[in-house]
Amino acid sequence: MSLLGLDVGTTGCKAVVFDIEGKVLSAAYREYPLLHPQPGWIELDMRLVLEKIKESIREASSQVKRDSVRALSISTQGEAFVPVDKKGNLLSNSPVSFDNRGEKFVQWWEKALGKERIMKITGMPLHSMFSLNKIMWLKENSPHIYSKTWKFLCCGDLLIYKLGLSPTIDYSLASRTMVFDILKKRWSEEILSRADIDPSLLAEVVPSGTVVGEIPQRIANSLSLPSRVTVVTGGHDQPCGALGAGVKEEGVAMEAIGTVDCIASIFKEPHLNKKMLENNFACYPHTVPQFYITLAFNFTGGSLLKWFRNTLGKEEKEKAKKTGKDVYSILINEATPEPSSLYLLPHFTTTGTPYMDTNSSGAILGLSLNTSKAELIKAILEGISFEMKYNLSLLEEIGIPVNELRAIGGGAKSRKWLQLKADLYGKKMVSLKVSEAASLGAAILAGVATGEYSSIEEAVEATVKTKEVFYPQEEKTRIYEEKFQIYKDIYPTLKSLNHRIRGAAVA
Amino acid sequence: MSLLGLDVGTTGCKAVVFDIEGKVLSAAYREYPLLHPQPGWIELDMRLVLEKIKESIREASSQVKRDSVRALSISTQGEAFVPVDKKGNLLSNSPVSFDNRGEKFVQWWEKALGKERIMKITGMPLHSMFSLNKIMWLKENSPHIYSKTWKFLCCGDLLIYKLGLSPTIDYSLASRTMVFDILKKRWSEEILSRADIDPSLLAEVVPSGTVVGEIPQRIANSLSLPSRVTVVTGGHDQPCGALGAGVKEEGVAMEAIGTVDCIASIFKEPHLNKKMLENNFACYPHTVPQFYITLAFNFTGGSLLKWFRNTLGKEEKEKAKKTGKDVYSILINEATPEPSSLYLLPHFTTTGTPYMDTNSSGAILGLSLNTSKAELIKAILEGISFEMKYNLSLLEEIGIPVNELRAIGGGAKSRKWLQLKADLYGKKMVSLKVSEAASLGAAILAGVATGEYSSIEEAVEATVKTKEVFYPQEEKTRIYEEKFQIYKDIYPTLKSLNHRIRGAAVA
Repeated sequence: MSLLGLDVGTTGCKAVVFDIEGKVLSAAYREYPLLHPQPGWIELDMRLVLEKIKESIREASSQVKRDSVRALSISTQGEAFVPVDKKGNLLSNSPVSFDNRGEKFVQWWEKALGKERIMKITGMPLHSMFSLNKIMWLKENSPHIYSKTWKFLCCGDLLIYKLGLSPTIDYSLASRTMVFDILKKRWSEEILSRADIDPSLLAEVVPSGTVVGEIPQRIANSLSLPSRVTVVTGGHDQPCGALGAGVKEEGVAMEAIGTVDCIASIFKEPHLNKKMLENNFACYPHTVPQFYITLAFNFTGGSLLKWFRNTLGKEEKEKAKKTGKDVYSILINEATPEPSSLYLLPHFTTTGTPYMDTNSSGAILGLSLNTSKAELIKAILEGISFEMKYNLSLLEEIGIPVNELRAIGGGAKSRKWLQLKADLYGKKMVSLKVSEAASLGAAILAGVATGEYSSIEEAVEATVKTKEVFYPQEEKTRIYEEKFQIYKDIYPTLKSLNHRIRGAAVA
Repeated sequence: MSLLGLDVGTTGCKAVVFDIEGKVLSAAYREYPLLHPQPGWIELDMRLVLEKIKESIREASSQVKRDSVRALSISTQGEAFVPVDKKGNLLSNSPVSFDNRGEKFVQWWEKALGKERIMKITGMPLHSMFSLNKIMWLKENSPHIYSKTWKFLCCGDLLIYKLGLSPTIDYSLASRTMVFDILKKRWSEEILSRADIDPSLLAEVVPSGTVVGEIPQRIANSLSLPSRVTVVTGGHDQPCGALGAGVKEEGVAMEAIGTVDCIASIFKEPHLNKKMLENNFACYPHTVPQFYITLAFNFTGGSLLKWFRNTLGKEEKEKAKKTGKDVYSILINEATPEPSSLYLLPHFTTTGTPYMDTNSSGAILGLSLNTSKAELIKAILEGISFEMKYNLSLLEEIGIPVNELRAIGGGAKSRKWLQLKADLYGKKMVSLKVSEAASLGAAILAGVATGEYSSIEEAVEATVKTKEVFYPQEEKTRIYEEKFQIYKDIYPTLKSLNHRIRGAAVA
């Protein structure tokens, strides 16, 4: 018996087959390009994405025992959506999260309803990224498409529909549209009527881990899947990743150390207050029932190491080529063992939480003629982590304390980085045996829904395995705490200068 | 007929023999180490320095026609001094400019006389670097040396004395002791009596370009010099360099683009106002009679390119080795042709004027994932130049406008850097045929004093030759003017953070 977990990201998709103990039996990965048809527009060709998902399912499925896969579920990027007509035709490309076409409607909503009210209903801090604002853009700018649309489907419900079932979306993914009432657990009539959008244009909403049905034989055949595979609702990728990392109680968070660095923390009582809104912390249903989740993230995470590698790391690249070692391991190993005397503000792209400031920029302070390359690399690792420490401190002020972080993503492979994070946060960092946490989270949902596990707790117990625990080293934590007092003041000090540098109006 | 120009720096000395047209006939260079016997102490072993000077004279002299050298003069570092007893024995090492032993007396003088009064008398903005504060330290901490001292001699007067003549110092070098009354043109009784130092402990002061006497035969022989070489007072190295670059009228300045970047500008009426003091601009006699000179400088000049080479330029170093090209040319050529989108604060060591802030530090702002290595190099060249542009703007406000800069030093070899400076300053930059400007300045003084030239004007006309003129390119000047408006605000914005970063008290 095995479970298929799908993970649909912005630049690629993964199909992973797990056995009942969470062991990876097979995995397949496909990439697809982000399209930039106009400045500010960032799209996916969803037809291509669906093709690539199918290919990955076929490849992963054909590598395991025939008839092995019993159920599948889906972890996906949020915000992206596509208009579909009654015959199932996709009517346009899919604008992804960072597509800026929704910007106009941010001001519109601010006036029409106010961001406080939107937060109270949807748990989302008003932002252009959410699907609704781009649906409104499409209504205004492509009325011919809007009028032909039967459903606006996000990646999860689209895929379920294309697997031959009724389009069904789970609470967590529905939340990323900014249309879902997270307390009443249904599409918000208030939001929809203000936006003048018919509720029937959206998929049915159910909890994560709900059985939708079985894949019809014809489609199962085309995917090299056995008969009667049960399709189960999954969730937004971060909550799925958190589940796959074993985050199922308060005080334990997931940290995805990837291109973007993202911490997902869960809690039982929803936090919808002013402080959450001010810091751009969303609050929406976790994939584990009875829990809510929030995300703290910085868009410049591992991408900063990649930047350093491409810009200043020719030597390390060549070394990696020669020795066959991973270039990032080489870079991280090169970093000074001691805390650096530098300060790096990692806003090399737009910031994430709490600022959501598109006009900040990267900065390095404390440079001297004694600054070494090793210290620069250390400063990168520290800067990314300080930004997350600041987010953790805000979450704690709000009443969402985190004591332990379970690391996933590329950065979780580096023992040095995890130890640095433990020291810098002053918190326990845990690495895990399975690195495909989002797919595993989806597989867990599939397994619980189909009775392979009696509960989420049991499933996590059976499948999520700790690899190593990193404890903070007191003396280093003390030094980082001192550095943090300075770090916290860098963004506000530089804000106005950075806005001028980026050519934007002074805030 | 030829003239010998000596140049005594902090890390090496040069002897250059020029013909009457300023052509270099021979040159010899010797290095000597800076000593750091205790934290903050930075010394030269003057016995060794004297040996090295003699070696360089012997070498340069022996390469030209016998009996060719008619006169010599000396350009030297300022501030350094050595106590000498009646027999001519050097009683200690020589603390150089950056030796911090004078710091205590800065506060003492502030109370005893006030920095405004000191500026009015000496033209020097109160600072620990000046010789007087270190003489006072020596009096307090080494009374046994002080009591044996016959004269405290700076490099120029020491060398004249060791050439067998009466120790004689010129106005410009005397000014760097913070004891010289620049208007009355004599040692200040007010300063000396407050410091409780006997005026007889100092050398006789005369204008630059004064004949002191002829080198005795015995000493001439030991230096491979002909009989009856006339010794002429020279000056502080920056005024000598300015003269050797042909700076002999208002509006024309010298820019020495070396490890340190220094602009020397001259004027007829002394500026001793509050604004000069606030910006740490000294005002003292130039080596050209009737003129005063001021220095604007940043301690992190070309040293920043060296830092980049050592830290991040392994590739360029290897390329230089392979091709035999200069590594700095390779780096400068790599810089983006267009103005960068970055901002670099070049305070990688202590700042120079106007701040004289030992607790600032280097910073790079405006970084993004698109930042290239070429842009980082450009930002270094720009940052050094913006710091000097800011100094130029302050000088202009004070009433010391500069229209043309005559470049000397290592950086003057780079046509790209000179064009960048022309664009960024919006001013004419001139490069010169002779790169040994300080030695040439000394040789000019020797030549005029001994009647080889009828005047300084004639001497400069005959010896200082323009190599190339760089004019500002309007469009780039406009962009740099915009960037400058932001650049000016970086230091004040970061000041308090930088002080915290350097572990100093918040200002």
